Amino acid sequence: MPKFYSEKLPHEVVLRDPVHGYIHIEDQVVLNILKSKEFQRMRRIKQLGPVSYVFPGATHTRFEHNLGVYELTRRICNIFAKKYPLVKPGDGLWDVDNRLLVECAGLLHDIGHGPYSHTFEHLFGTNHEVLGQKIITDPNTEINHALRKVAPNFPELVASVIAKTYPNPQVVKMISSQADADRMDYLQRDAYFTGVSYGHFDISRVLRVIRPYQNGICFNNNGMHAVEDYIVSRYQMYQQVYFHRVGRSMEVILHHLLQRAKDVYQQGTLPVTPELARFLAGKWTLDDYLKLDDGVMETNFSMWTDSSDQILADLAKRYLFRKQLASVKIDPETKKLLPKLKNLIKEAGFDPEYYTEINSAFDEPYDAYKPTGKNANSQIEIMQDDGTLIELSELSPLVKALNGTFQGDERFFFPKTMLAKNDEPQIFDPIYQEFQKYVRNGELRYLRRPKKKSE
Amino acid sequence: MPKFYSEKLPHEVVLRDPVHGYIHIEDQVVLNILKSKEFQRMRRIKQLGPVSYVFPGATHTRFEHNLGVYELTRRICNIFAKKYPLVKPGDGLWDVDNRLLVECAGLLHDIGHGPYSHTFEHLFGTNHEVLGQKIITDPNTEINHALRKVAPNFPELVASVIAKTYPNPQVVKMISSQADADRMDYLQRDAYFTGVSYGHFDISRVLRVIRPYQNGICFNNNGMHAVEDYIVSRYQMYQQVYFHRVGRSMEVILHHLLQRAKDVYQQGTLPVTPELARFLAGKWTLDDYLKLDDGVMETNFSMWTDSSDQILADLAKRYLFRKQLASVKIDPETKKLLPKLKNLIKEAGFDPEYYTEINSAFDEPYDAYKPTGKNANSQIEIMQDDGTLIELSELSPLVKALNGTFQGDERFFFPKTMLAKNDEPQIFDPIYQEFQKYVRNGELRYLRRPKKKSE
Amino acid sequence: MPKFYSEKLPHEVVLRDPVHGYIHIEDQVVLNILKSKEFQRMRRIKQLGPVSYVFPGATHTRFEHNLGVYELTRRICNIFAKKYPLVKPGDGLWDVDNRLLVECAGLLHDIGHGPYSHTFEHLFGTNHEVLGQKIITDPNTEINHALRKVAPNFPELVASVIAKTYPNPQVVKMISSQADADRMDYLQRDAYFTGVSYGHFDISRVLRVIRPYQNGICFNNNGMHAVEDYIVSRYQMYQQVYFHRVGRSMEVILHHLLQRAKDVYQQGTLPVTPELARFLAGKWTLDDYLKLDDGVMETNFSMWTDSSDQILADLAKRYLFRKQLASVKIDPETKKLLPKLKNLIKEAGFDPEYYTEINSAFDEPYDAYKPTGKNANSQIEIMQDDGTLIELSELSPLVKALNGTFQGDERFFFPKTMLAKNDEPQIFDPIYQEFQKYVRNGELRYLRRPKKKSE
Amino acid sequence: MPKFYSEKLPHEVVLRDPVHGYIHIEDQVVLNILKSKEFQRMRRIKQLGPVSYVFPGATHTRFEHNLGVYELTRRICNIFAKKYPLVKPGDGLWDVDNRLLVECAGLLHDIGHGPYSHTFEHLFGTNHEVLGQKIITDPNTEINHALRKVAPNFPELVASVIAKTYPNPQVVKMISSQADADRMDYLQRDAYFTGVSYGHFDISRVLRVIRPYQNGICFNNNGMHAVEDYIVSRYQMYQQVYFHRVGRSMEVILHHLLQRAKDVYQQGTLPVTPELARFLAGKWTLDDYLKLDDGVMETNFSMWTDSSDQILADLAKRYLFRKQLASVKIDPETKKLLPKLKNLIKEAGFDPEYYTEINSAFDEPYDAYKPTGKNANSQIEIMQDDGTLIELSELSPLVKALNGTFQGDERFFFPKTMLAKNDEPQIFDPIYQEFQKYVRNGELRYLRRPKKKSE
Repeated sequence: MPKFYSEKLPHEVVLRDPVHGYIHIEDQVVLNILKSKEFQRMRRIKQLGPVSYVFPGATHTRFEHNLGVYELTRRICNIFAKKYPLVKPGDGLWDVDNRLLVECAGLLHDIGHGPYSHTFEHLFGTNHEVLGQKIITDPNTEINHALRKVAPNFPELVASVIAKTYPNPQVVKMISSQADADRMDYLQRDAYFTGVSYGHFDISRVLRVIRPYQNGICFNNNGMHAVEDYIVSRYQMYQQVYFHRVGRSMEVILHHLLQRAKDVYQQGTLPVTPELARFLAGKWTLDDYLKLDDGVMETNFSMWTDSSDQILADLAKRYLFRKQLASVKIDPETKKLLPKLKNLIKEAGFDPEYYTEINSAFDEPYDAYKPTGKNANSQIEIMQDDGTLIELSELSPLVKALNGTFQGDERFFFPKTMLAKNDEPQIFDPIYQEFQKYVRNGELRYLRRPKKKSE
Repeated sequence: MPKFYSEKLPHEVVLRDPVHGYIHIEDQVVLNILKSKEFQRMRRIKQLGPVSYVFPGATHTRFEHNLGVYELTRRICNIFAKKYPLVKPGDGLWDVDNRLLVECAGLLHDIGHGPYSHTFEHLFGTNHEVLGQKIITDPNTEINHALRKVAPNFPELVASVIAKTYPNPQVVKMISSQADADRMDYLQRDAYFTGVSYGHFDISRVLRVIRPYQNGICFNNNGMHAVEDYIVSRYQMYQQVYFHRVGRSMEVILHHLLQRAKDVYQQGTLPVTPELARFLAGKWTLDDYLKLDDGVMETNFSMWTDSSDQILADLAKRYLFRKQLASVKIDPETKKLLPKLKNLIKEAGFDPEYYTEINSAFDEPYDAYKPTGKNANSQIEIMQDDGTLIELSELSPLVKALNGTFQGDERFFFPKTMLAKNDEPQIFDPIYQEFQKYVRNGELRYLRRPKKKSE
Repeated sequence: MPKFYSEKLPHEVVLRDPVHGYIHIEDQVVLNILKSKEFQRMRRIKQLGPVSYVFPGATHTRFEHNLGVYELTRRICNIFAKKYPLVKPGDGLWDVDNRLLVECAGLLHDIGHGPYSHTFEHLFGTNHEVLGQKIITDPNTEINHALRKVAPNFPELVASVIAKTYPNPQVVKMISSQADADRMDYLQRDAYFTGVSYGHFDISRVLRVIRPYQNGICFNNNGMHAVEDYIVSRYQMYQQVYFHRVGRSMEVILHHLLQRAKDVYQQGTLPVTPELARFLAGKWTLDDYLKLDDGVMETNFSMWTDSSDQILADLAKRYLFRKQLASVKIDPETKKLLPKLKNLIKEAGFDPEYYTEINSAFDEPYDAYKPTGKNANSQIEIMQDDGTLIELSELSPLVKALNGTFQGDERFFFPKTMLAKNDEPQIFDPIYQEFQKYVRNGELRYLRRPKKKSE
Repeated sequence: MPKFYSEKLPHEVVLRDPVHGYIHIEDQVVLNILKSKEFQRMRRIKQLGPVSYVFPGATHTRFEHNLGVYELTRRICNIFAKKYPLVKPGDGLWDVDNRLLVECAGLLHDIGHGPYSHTFEHLFGTNHEVLGQKIITDPNTEINHALRKVAPNFPELVASVIAKTYPNPQVVKMISSQADADRMDYLQRDAYFTGVSYGHFDISRVLRVIRPYQNGICFNNNGMHAVEDYIVSRYQMYQQVYFHRVGRSMEVILHHLLQRAKDVYQQGTLPVTPELARFLAGKWTLDDYLKLDDGVMETNFSMWTDSSDQILADLAKRYLFRKQLASVKIDPETKKLLPKLKNLIKEAGFDPEYYTEINSAFDEPYDAYKPTGKNANSQIEIMQDDGTLIELSELSPLVKALNGTFQGDERFFFPKTMLAKNDEPQIFDPIYQEFQKYVRNGELRYLRRPKKKSE
């Protein structure tokens, strides 16, 4: 590959980062990307969305995470350049000419995200991957402008790394694999800002043992336990933070709120800012997308709290003022009870379409091999002294236990009032009592028919 | 004083906090305040405003800080109740009946803050202290409703603690003094989220030695160095974080942006959300104020980036996309050069009214005694073995050095382009060169007249 | 049970501890134990023995660990007293009268340990459990004297808690179970001093969810993941720290050194301090035992470096100056190669009896149930909302994976020189080369016979 | 200077260090020094001697500290080589050929220390600086042997760096100045192991701004506050840890114990190990010195606890079992009371020669300039944008306050029993009461004559 023209900054620029100490910027192009309006926009999009309703410290944004992924990528490039530089093409070592490319890809891997990506995409048909590619390759963006200064095809190359179509697997897997800079940053960062102790793993050890090989990136065998611990940390963060039932409850409310807004918008009575209006109308441009952020969304929600549509107003208040739904664990068997429960909820005065939802949250902490899908071909390999590779789950009993499994649960969300205790008798008490018969230890359960004496 | 009716929660509720580990909530009234919409609003107001443009991690909000102050207040109350409970009235020990009152005051001490308080107040004549009192005592707020359940006059008592008119000085000084729960929380919290190492002091030691006495709160002498270190930490945080020149630059831009928006609004051409409009029009209510937050402000800024008013659009972009001004240190002497420099700036095409500003940032890290002002009568006292008190600066050479001094600087802000180096010749080059003659080592300086040979 | 007479200290005494912040001492008896010569002796016995040869920071002693176990016990007692005090006998809640007893047991649970306990016991027939009981119950020790002031039978009661014969299972299991104060302290402490990141788990969460029940101690279900993480931490510490091959190598050397010293002592030519001499002679008293510590042992080793017995002198130098043995992993199959390898080692000039050893290191990270043995009946139970108990491995896939398994390895230790590369030809080269044929990727392996062409 | 022959290790060796993460070893000579018996000996000498009696965690040794100084030196060399490499001789930049030299000097700067250096030197006339030079240059040591492999005069060059006679001031000041690798390591390390929070400063920032200049090492001006904070940390560590009155009390006991041992040795009745005997006899060799460590000393103390000399036995027990002396602050004025107090102490049954002492502990936290002495010519300089230097105390009000001052106190140590309260009447009560009249708030004070009525 050609060596890219990389203008060096006269002085290294650093940004203080609580997770990595400093983010180091040495190239003009990286600084230019940082200064672009598309990148600065990330400051206004929280990394974990409604999770900050559960862990108040989790107000960190996609801006810092992108910087963090860049910084880890930069450090890995330095390590590879020092310890494993290519000697001759095809020797499976690191081609240092890829440095700037993979650093820019790390910096931009999440650039397509907007506010509440998951929920938003589902309702408005946006796609953060497609949009990310567009932001990088569209000649009208400041990011594209910055990248083009390196080489005319540099934007497309950066986009291809993120799209995993770039031919060098070491470059692709540094950004996208089961042990990539992306995951290594967000686990540590989310742990730091939420304040939980689970996401910490021995990053200094992982960086000591990471190395390139013919088909991507692997780890030396004296670091097996550090990599194992990273997989366990990932599992713990999903169970404890990302799948927290209150965070999911806020997502359920958000989903219903935006759904209701779409309905009310059709009726022409929704106060709404111009950009969001164009999404509700189904006619939006990249510029509209780039104007969205958490604050714009919440400004709209705030306007909706005064809506004459009771459900819209109530859901907007529930979201802004953290009035979560309750939930119980369900399984294929107990799911059959839901029609009955929804009826009770309806009797208690709530429209089940807007006040209940089944929400699944499952993660595959590690997958040793799957030919397709998100983790395709990205099993973690441990290199032995003699250069042979052993797949991680063959060495670790913990990873083996998680390998290929889906961890998480499926929950049914509903208004909290259904669990009210009858301290003060209410009109709905009999309904509540009936509902509560089906709830035990946080799960739905089948009622046993009372045994008859003759049985 | 009367013992307040305090409904206990059936189970303690905890919130994870990266600074204090857990926030513990044991009283129904505290939980009710937390759930109020006025308090939830704090989630959308950053604690340090534009400082996150300098320290990207500093996205934490007033919500967490208020919780942190509450938690420290709660811990101090526990310590006082265990170690120094009142034996008989007037003995200078701690009257445990004040617990709920001071905890609520800690939780609500900053409730009157809105987005960018300092700048906003200056331009729109709001006052966060007055508004805070109103939020607590206005019978229409959810917070007032929650407090009234404790006792009819409880809102007024909480307000009086924050206003420092409550008669018990121990209660008042736990919230407002030179070593109060407010400062102890924000130093640690701001250090944690910015990632700097300066704000850390030995909070566990400070809590071991804090104690009540007749006129307020003091510290046992075996903790003198911990208290000294806290004062030094405070000084360091001001110098390094709160007074950072880039953060101040963003505040200067914000100030000019809102000023310009007022002007454009008069001309009737400003797109603006309804609540902010009422502030620009000078006719706002408490409800309007409670609808403002960082997101609403930035949504307006975002709309203004498309304004036909060039200055407004430029300032809005500068703020949203972090295009800071440059600055130099000035002093009373070099200030005299500013008219000349402003002329050069004007010649270079910038309206000095909107693109320059003198900004002073000075803090008094410690004041042993001043009869009036912010730190009035709140010198820090160290109790000796025999019960006598010695004021801190008499014991610590470091505190003595800072005592009564004002630390900080005064800077002149102007467009960065004035410092452009003539790599690529530009039309304004001679102006820039003239300007740069006056800048050296980050300060303005007088030019020496060239010495004539005969001299 | 009777309420013990507990003299309170006029002022709480605290010791600074890097792991728990402060150790808090409120009772005269605890302070008296601390001041006893038997307890002060612990300052001179390293917690992890030769592990500091691998992790230089691991110089912490049994003194701090004992204090740490005491402090955790104290905190658990406080939590139980506040949240779960006994209402009526037999209700499965916490009888606060056990506080002082269990705190003293925590403080003294390891008092019987001497220098290099494991190796020492093996060679000299001492037993730290028996000796610990003796130190507590022998009327001549200062510890016994201190305990007797509480009640005449208090020493015996404390001893019975440590011996697990005390009738209240909550008291016993706070000190000895799969999730006891002992393990919780040493995992955190050893992680802190070694500097590894594996031993950290969420102790604040574990302490939030720990609770008494009829048959001992369990955890509330909202803390399942914190307990799961603790088990994983334990597993990681064993794999990474306690079973480190270099630490085990130093233990092997130590064992051979002491064995050789016994032999040389028989011949009457060993310079030795009086107390150790009595162990070598097989006639020692408790007083002799209490005079031993790491420094005394190393002082003897230092004298032995000048011995005319070549093997003794060499082994003493190896131990003092960290000249470790090499090792390879073995299994039942490859073990069959050892006679052949020992012959090669002998040919290379080393006495296999003193320069080789098979060393097994296996731990059972968690055991759901075993009727006998170290972890008997101490499975970890998680309490559901309705009070039912579920055993941990039924809830956690990670714990399930570890449940009942033995993690670790068996290694063969031998002189490092056997692995010498022939950069500089040596007389023993052919022997080394033969030896090295059997070593690959750190394991012994069988050689394949060279395939004949005809095959 | 000549480029030294430096054999690189085939693979970098790392040691886990809780303070710096990893110690990185890349050169064969560094590994050889580490493996030498003179360096391994440091494992058995505590960095802070009796301070572990006050802060139980402070069991770390000179071994780790020496490694830490080496590691910081290595990192500074890397920074200098990357950012400030010499362009032409005499340009004030960094000559990379000094790397190995200064790294070895960092590793060996404290190699001459023995157990309890300060006290030991005072009594036995040893000198750790002279002995350190000897260990490096004596052809019989393993360290000398390792160094000689680099170049015949390499040992002498390393010794000259430590002796500050090496001509390049950058090399000398990296090891010995007011902001050197030695101090930067021990402040952080001692803070970590004691568990206090005072020694922490922003090492990552200090390393970002450190730079060479013509006359040594200085710091860029954007790091002024980090350097200021380092000076304040140093001051705090002295006040809080190194000058702790209990640690000093143990040193006083140690001093008297060794003094008494010398006396008893003269009488020929002291049981003592051979090496220490030669010091008591005044006839010792370097080999004897190298056999001393904390354990050898304590083994002797342990033997002395059984001595028939009552004072020796008592002092040995006091040292081993932490029975500290009490103390009061004194000043030139109150010192005049000491003869009277010593008389009371004598009346109470203690020989003042062995049971009292005046102990001064003063440190000069920073000295802007002194032509002679320990800190000669090592003021800290801050480099401005234009290359001019400003001395630190001109920029920092805190450093200015400490500049040239001596912080600490002078204390009088005496048996604790003199402060006994007369709960239980004793024979010595009147003496104690008389003594206690002179003590108030931890200081000696003059008694005011009782005022007569007529006055």
